[in-house]
Amino acid sequence: MITVTVDLGQRAYPIHIGPALIDRTDLFEPHVRGKTVAIVTNETVEPLYAARLEATLAPLGKTIIRIVLPDGEAHKNWETLNRIFDRLLAERADRKTTLIALGGGVIGDMTGFAAASYMRGIPFIQVPTTLLAQVDSSVGGKTGINHPLGKNMIGAFYQPQAVIADSAVLRSLPPRELAAGIAEVIKTAAIADHAFFSWVESNIEALSNYDQAALAVAVRRSCEVKAKVVGEDEREGGIRAILNFGHTFGHAIEAGLGYGEWLHGEAVGCGMVMAADLSARLGLLSEASRERIVNVTRGAKLPVRAPALGEERYIDLMRVDKKAEGGEIKFILLKKIGEAVITGVPEAELRATLAASI
Amino acid sequence: MITVTVDLGQRAYPIHIGPALIDRTDLFEPHVRGKTVAIVTNETVEPLYAARLEATLAPLGKTIIRIVLPDGEAHKNWETLNRIFDRLLAERADRKTTLIALGGGVIGDMTGFAAASYMRGIPFIQVPTTLLAQVDSSVGGKTGINHPLGKNMIGAFYQPQAVIADSAVLRSLPPRELAAGIAEVIKTAAIADHAFFSWVESNIEALSNYDQAALAVAVRRSCEVKAKVVGEDEREGGIRAILNFGHTFGHAIEAGLGYGEWLHGEAVGCGMVMAADLSARLGLLSEASRERIVNVTRGAKLPVRAPALGEERYIDLMRVDKKAEGGEIKFILLKKIGEAVITGVPEAELRATLAASI
Repeated sequence: MITVTVDLGQRAYPIHIGPALIDRTDLFEPHVRGKTVAIVTNETVEPLYAARLEATLAPLGKTIIRIVLPDGEAHKNWETLNRIFDRLLAERADRKTTLIALGGGVIGDMTGFAAASYMRGIPFIQVPTTLLAQVDSSVGGKTGINHPLGKNMIGAFYQPQAVIADSAVLRSLPPRELAAGIAEVIKTAAIADHAFFSWVESNIEALSNYDQAALAVAVRRSCEVKAKVVGEDEREGGIRAILNFGHTFGHAIEAGLGYGEWLHGEAVGCGMVMAADLSARLGLLSEASRERIVNVTRGAKLPVRAPALGEERYIDLMRVDKKAEGGEIKFILLKKIGEAVITGVPEAELRATLAASI
Repeated sequence: MITVTVDLGQRAYPIHIGPALIDRTDLFEPHVRGKTVAIVTNETVEPLYAARLEATLAPLGKTIIRIVLPDGEAHKNWETLNRIFDRLLAERADRKTTLIALGGGVIGDMTGFAAASYMRGIPFIQVPTTLLAQVDSSVGGKTGINHPLGKNMIGAFYQPQAVIADSAVLRSLPPRELAAGIAEVIKTAAIADHAFFSWVESNIEALSNYDQAALAVAVRRSCEVKAKVVGEDEREGGIRAILNFGHTFGHAIEAGLGYGEWLHGEAVGCGMVMAADLSARLGLLSEASRERIVNVTRGAKLPVRAPALGEERYIDLMRVDKKAEGGEIKFILLKKIGEAVITGVPEAELRATLAASI
């Protein structure tokens, strides 16, 4: 087991990475204080891991509530969130109740926001069961739900007590979900660590073939890079925004197709290719580097062509992005592999990228 | 004008108290940064002050959005909150948009929670227009909405940029609303400041007769006491809970009758009388001090007898209170006037208080 610490002063927390951690009672014990624990999961993950997690928690002698939500980004909304609140109140869960998010990014984001908001804040633990959640949503404290007019528009910055990232559970991931997670690994390497990017290029087949050792390395290095960036800028006042590389285009794809049509990681993968295209068009990134981004994304079996929503629709969707300020769309672009920049861009180049990508 | 500072480090903010502050552009200017300001108010307050506030903001050259919600505690729910989000997204309000809460406690709590959650947090300013909001909800950063199973169950701790408490607007308050605000003044004095409590006793008629000078003193001293308590314990880990004196009984009254039947301050007023009764029964508070609490509450024209919901119903409602832990109901009681204590109580004495109060 490896432990990465996210250093946020009083809100610092550990990310434990390794096989079969879901069975380790000792990892949960320090973070569960009240008399009640509520496991929040979804219909897909429940039959795989809920009973195992409950067996792990049993020696702690807590009352365990199991809350099972429908699966998928389409359910990341107020109605589903409210099912958590309804159940917690019906079970008289108090302010010391610990929530455990057992699932992918959607479960993590919703459980985190429920923890942030229930009685104005209760503790929670992340047990991410997808590669995407292990490398992305478990670091950074971003929680929230979607609104019909935009993704993750309602939420909070709220840190977990701990993240327990079990590498062995990744074996149960469908191939599309695995690829979506690799997209976030590529992203993290591309914006901040050239050596890691080269490692990903060399290991892209191993990652795509569920190689446990390669996946554990990818999770650890991604978490380290993210933890460093988030530690410098917890509430995304500046540098932290580079973690959104590929997300401005990606969010537009997700919103334009309807949430759940493409996986978040697939949209981000394609969004990175578009952002690399825009970076090259503006003379920031070399053509050779742009091609490396395209090739490694394709190597991860991710889509590299954007859905044909039409240029105007893309621009419209991007204007409502959280990173937009006063109507100007902000992009995370690459100066080189391993170094990102945040900037507005001329509309002509943006339109050229859209025309070339869809 | 008097300014009380709530000292919370990076989140410190000023409370400005005085007549006609709603017209002071200079008080708003330092706290409005983005291109858009959204005023959130209700149908009752809008015709009185919205146009005046907009005229105050006009010299700042911002786009002003006016969001008008239905009036009353019964609307302090997700549906109403979501009207704020819908409008902000429809108007493309970005992360630098400032919300201004123009109204009483319900508007302040909902606008604060909207600010805490919109795009994971945007700035907001409180312009409380009731005495209750000026002395209570403008200090402490408690925001939130009600759930059918409990009051303020969903929310966040989130601090405003500033509070602008205009003493002159209190003239437009209906008498019941004024009395509800005085309840919070009495509460604050009773738990932490014997000299202030004596001052309230001597000035209870002036306060009830809308005396501007007396009200300004009451607001200032209440805010000072609250700011000190909150500064020591922002997230209510300990001492801050004494501010909930009268609230365990009060919340049960509100939930039992249905939100909106009694005003929050009326329920707290009656709740203080009940908590004083319980304190006396347990030998903590002298009979003479108990009588002073009853008399000043009655002097403020607040109810001192609880609605006849039945003992079992009261106990049931109190068990779901946020202060309950593992099923044990926590009470804020008085050791003497000016000094509170947080404790569980034997059921026999609790039942005796209920029997004597209803």
